[in-house]
Amino acid sequence: MEQVSVNRAFAGLQGVYSHASSSTGTEMTFSVYVPDHASGARLPIVWYLSGLTCTHANVTEKGEFRAACAKLGLIFVAPDTSPRGEAVPDDPAGAYDFGLGAGFYVDATQQPYAANYRMWSYVTEELPALIAKQFPADLARQSIMGHSMGRHGALTIGLTYPERFAAVSAFAPIVAPGRVPWGEKALGGYLGADRSAWRKHDAVALIEDGARLPAILVDQGGDDAFLKEQLKPELLKGACEAAGIELTLRLQPGYDHSYYFISTFMADHLRWHAERLNGRRLEVH
Amino acid sequence: MEQVSVNRAFAGLQGVYSHASSSTGTEMTFSVYVPDHASGARLPIVWYLSGLTCTHANVTEKGEFRAACAKLGLIFVAPDTSPRGEAVPDDPAGAYDFGLGAGFYVDATQQPYAANYRMWSYVTEELPALIAKQFPADLARQSIMGHSMGRHGALTIGLTYPERFAAVSAFAPIVAPGRVPWGEKALGGYLGADRSAWRKHDAVALIEDGARLPAILVDQGGDDAFLKEQLKPELLKGACEAAGIELTLRLQPGYDHSYYFISTFMADHLRWHAERLNGRRLEVH
Repeated sequence: MEQVSVNRAFAGLQGVYSHASSSTGTEMTFSVYVPDHASGARLPIVWYLSGLTCTHANVTEKGEFRAACAKLGLIFVAPDTSPRGEAVPDDPAGAYDFGLGAGFYVDATQQPYAANYRMWSYVTEELPALIAKQFPADLARQSIMGHSMGRHGALTIGLTYPERFAAVSAFAPIVAPGRVPWGEKALGGYLGADRSAWRKHDAVALIEDGARLPAILVDQGGDDAFLKEQLKPELLKGACEAAGIELTLRLQPGYDHSYYFISTFMADHLRWHAERLNGRRLEVH
Repeated sequence: MEQVSVNRAFAGLQGVYSHASSSTGTEMTFSVYVPDHASGARLPIVWYLSGLTCTHANVTEKGEFRAACAKLGLIFVAPDTSPRGEAVPDDPAGAYDFGLGAGFYVDATQQPYAANYRMWSYVTEELPALIAKQFPADLARQSIMGHSMGRHGALTIGLTYPERFAAVSAFAPIVAPGRVPWGEKALGGYLGADRSAWRKHDAVALIEDGARLPAILVDQGGDDAFLKEQLKPELLKGACEAAGIELTLRLQPGYDHSYYFISTFMADHLRWHAERLNGRRLEVH
């Protein structure tokens, strides 16, 4: 692991690191904020999965999470959203919603994407192992949040590993990628035409198929340009009601899809996570 | 004035605007955050002057000022740091520390800069008049802060118009541009070789020449790469002590010159400003 940069912020350290990833076969960059802490202490860890077009840098620069993480004693990890590099196949037309910057947190099975686009393995296995080794992180206390495509990732990962995450929350999630244009393009491209293979990467389908979480927090901007066509929080609401999952879905009037929206509610989400991270002790996975 | 963008954030509105400036002869862009407020209310205004290479966007995206401004009821205005455009003369060698992105908040007298590089007039006269007309701002309650070159601007403007600003604060200021390489290049280039013309754009010289402020707050990162050669807070300390100006100079160990440093102490500065903005009522200028 190489240190790209490290800056003191809110008495802790905001670092950016890169490493050769065995999952993606590329160099991957991620950011980690570690609050000031007692020597030898191990802190709970919050995963933040970013949205389409983003790298680790967007939330690191604009997310306004450090003040709350410092106060609450949370490590905050932000991975990239896809493999990168000259050799990595991109969307054939260079579109923003597939390929580079749009890994959708799946392990692709289709060519030419299968070799590099293994973001599911990267985020659920390889990166947690690296974080545990290199940082004072307590993997028994993890939670996960995300934005848009990243929230799709946070929710599908949270539903797949409910015993691993004390809290799952999201900003403007893509809740049912199998039923909206962004998701149909991405899941079709990465996983192929057989829609049954998509269900484990579709939060609503996962819930329909029996996956459960104790609680989910979602904030959704009322003026989000993608609300009606791509995000469809009402599908998540219906699935959670049918499954008895406690969903706190807050429609925030006047807010859009940007980091101005995310930063506004970031501290609130982190408090919600901290309550759950510190309220119960989980087994290490 | 044209609206470039507007986004809801922390219950208020973060806007970016552009207008044809009579001071610089160019299109100028700036950002304004207006907190949620009672209809008809006029709010105090904090000016933020940015550092070398920055536009309005750096602090707008990375400054983490909105939570505090929303809580304290402060309008936050961030101008650009220089005129921009194809026709605007830049540093002959394209250096970052002169020309575009480096206006140093002076009215240039030297060619070819004199026509466009009129940032002093822009920031002290033209933009305040526009803000007063277009936003619910109470020009009787203004304060000013800045970073690096912008703090040089904040301090020289604050010292020149002490009756206008209830508070003056800074992050990592260039306190004595007449005595450091950045300032010598810039003031020489914009104002000519006669150093007597530089003194009204040098905070330490202004204080030596009799300018006064009730109080100044400065945070300076202890690991700032520019500390020893360019910033020299000890010169400001000496001048303030000799003049009886109350200077709160805080050396923050481990912090650098970046927005990670600024964002850490931003809310603290804004509280300091709000106390002074709300503690006394000034006459309109």
